[in-house]
Amino acid sequence: MRTQVGIVGAGPAGLVLAHLLHLNGIDSVVVERQTRDHVEKRIRAGVLEHGTVDLLTAAGLGDRLLRERMVHHGVELLFDRVGHRVPLTELTGREITIYGQHELVKDLISARLDTERPLHFEAADVQVDGTELTFHVDGTQTTVECDFIAGCDGFHGISRAGIPPSALTVFEREYPHAWLGVLAQAPPASDELVYAYHDRGFALHSMRTPDITRLYLQVPADTDAADWPDARIWDELRTRLDRDDPRWQLNEGPILEKSVAAMRSFVVTPMQHEQLFLAGDAAHIVPPTGAKGLNLAVADVAVLAEGFAEYYAGRGSGLLRRYSETCLRRVWRVQHFSWWMTSMLHRVDDDPFTRELQLSQLRYVTSSTAAATTLAENYVGFPMA
Amino acid sequence: MRTQVGIVGAGPAGLVLAHLLHLNGIDSVVVERQTRDHVEKRIRAGVLEHGTVDLLTAAGLGDRLLRERMVHHGVELLFDRVGHRVPLTELTGREITIYGQHELVKDLISARLDTERPLHFEAADVQVDGTELTFHVDGTQTTVECDFIAGCDGFHGISRAGIPPSALTVFEREYPHAWLGVLAQAPPASDELVYAYHDRGFALHSMRTPDITRLYLQVPADTDAADWPDARIWDELRTRLDRDDPRWQLNEGPILEKSVAAMRSFVVTPMQHEQLFLAGDAAHIVPPTGAKGLNLAVADVAVLAEGFAEYYAGRGSGLLRRYSETCLRRVWRVQHFSWWMTSMLHRVDDDPFTRELQLSQLRYVTSSTAAATTLAENYVGFPMA
Repeated sequence: MRTQVGIVGAGPAGLVLAHLLHLNGIDSVVVERQTRDHVEKRIRAGVLEHGTVDLLTAAGLGDRLLRERMVHHGVELLFDRVGHRVPLTELTGREITIYGQHELVKDLISARLDTERPLHFEAADVQVDGTELTFHVDGTQTTVECDFIAGCDGFHGISRAGIPPSALTVFEREYPHAWLGVLAQAPPASDELVYAYHDRGFALHSMRTPDITRLYLQVPADTDAADWPDARIWDELRTRLDRDDPRWQLNEGPILEKSVAAMRSFVVTPMQHEQLFLAGDAAHIVPPTGAKGLNLAVADVAVLAEGFAEYYAGRGSGLLRRYSETCLRRVWRVQHFSWWMTSMLHRVDDDPFTRELQLSQLRYVTSSTAAATTLAENYVGFPMA
Repeated sequence: MRTQVGIVGAGPAGLVLAHLLHLNGIDSVVVERQTRDHVEKRIRAGVLEHGTVDLLTAAGLGDRLLRERMVHHGVELLFDRVGHRVPLTELTGREITIYGQHELVKDLISARLDTERPLHFEAADVQVDGTELTFHVDGTQTTVECDFIAGCDGFHGISRAGIPPSALTVFEREYPHAWLGVLAQAPPASDELVYAYHDRGFALHSMRTPDITRLYLQVPADTDAADWPDARIWDELRTRLDRDDPRWQLNEGPILEKSVAAMRSFVVTPMQHEQLFLAGDAAHIVPPTGAKGLNLAVADVAVLAEGFAEYYAGRGSGLLRRYSETCLRRVWRVQHFSWWMTSMLHRVDDDPFTRELQLSQLRYVTSSTAAATTLAENYVGFPMA
């Protein structure tokens, strides 16, 4: 069996890439080791940059997204019991979209199936050997001869692991804290996201739909979600999100999902090895504070798809050769922003000097137009390359 | 002997305060343990904020300053062998002034002497006991009964040391690096300051006059200046300041002064204890990267002088009561900015992730108007309170 681009992983990166290739008449095979049900229910990020939505819409992937999304024009920073709104749209002319990643994945899978091009779930023993992609489905081994492979299989995937370590440089930082995330059956208590700095640690009040609240608590890195019964979670959220405003009230409801996500910064360079291109989490991880992971993955594959389009149109491989360099400029901007948001908002040590610096920075970001704009322009996202 | 305000220390804080009080008809006694010659030759900072110059000029202290200063409308950030100008005035409408602190001190001493109010150099065994200020000059002890004491005697002074430790909260951070500073008899190689980020460490190319260059190198905190003969200093400066520009050439000349300055962030709160008010370095120290120490001292005494003016005009002591709170807002803004500049520009560890974050931040600050404005508005200084 032959294809032009073998795509490992049916997350947002792999599926958006597959669709962009399809629009350019380029054939691909997508393999995913999980079940369709699993990837469609995997709770992940929920904030899409303006440019991400534009790209999806232009690719014909935005119909349900545009119907069902929530559009936000600001975010709130809460500290010293007072909320301060950063008016994203007023500062940048751009907006953000709230739409669960798993909802987007459903749309992307449906679009892929409509193209009738190959998409294999439950692919076992996926292996990449040069340009050969091998996997088992239902006990039958398939080998696909590809021109190129796109490794879109996430941080723990096999694509990056198959590159000789000597060919890669790894940049990494681990954080001493993690996020305990819950999905609650309760209407959001605020129209916009609330990023809360508190002496007990960071909290984030977000949402997925008008009936589902998404909440996060900073917890130590080795936290077991089992140590956090629902009552403890609500207690802690009430404390960290409390404010001097009698109208404020956190809406509580049944907790539908609970999990602890590690926080890590990770970049591997280059993002290409011979005919293998890494995209999304396979190449880089950001802490979730800036809500950038999904958006960065989409930006990668937008660059990659253009490179493939150029190549198959017979216009050379200049874009593909520059793929890693092009992507890494955005990757490092986003790494810096994600680290910046993380370090400003989390309880990082017991040093009172650190706390005062953080509070001074928060006051500055919420009072200087220039400083607020630095947050806003990064948060809504820079235009795609 | 009696006075209204006893002022400990004849540095910029004490002398500007004395003059502002004089303009309001308020009597003071200034005592300084060093000789006049010593304080007039003490090489310190050389960058004045726009607002500092405005304040000095309005107080009649700016005649020579306005004649002899150099006015700058930008600073340069040098990294990856390329210089990037931050156009301060274009971004903020304000400018910075280059004028050596010791030149300003000469002007301030001269102005004080013109008022014929007391200024005692070589005051030995200066002591503050409540509102009683005691010192020896030429072997004679003098005791001055004051309404208030202003502690303007720097980080190592006796004023803060006399406050019961339990009455103060200290915030402090030490840095693993220091600045080796030299004054060279050579015309500056650049019209504006150059802040250089280099893998070997930070360097700063500054100036005092059209014939005198001021240069700094990041060195380890425990550096002995004796380990840096002139040739080694020039070698290192040439390396760190080098750039891909054939027109660039570092001008060398005899080194007139050489010293190592520790880098420290320090804040004590409150800045008042009973009738004693701390101002300038007695209350806070910033790392020199943002060129803020002198400016912050002047901002403190501007607030303090207004408080005394209100009090002696019989309009109450509201401003004096809020002195600490008023100053600390600016102090923490400046602490954050100085830490931010320091952490962006210094080699802080061997972690390649840190290096990439710094470079991404430098690219951002020199390419985003909003980010450049955050540097610029802090660097030129916010309006006096």
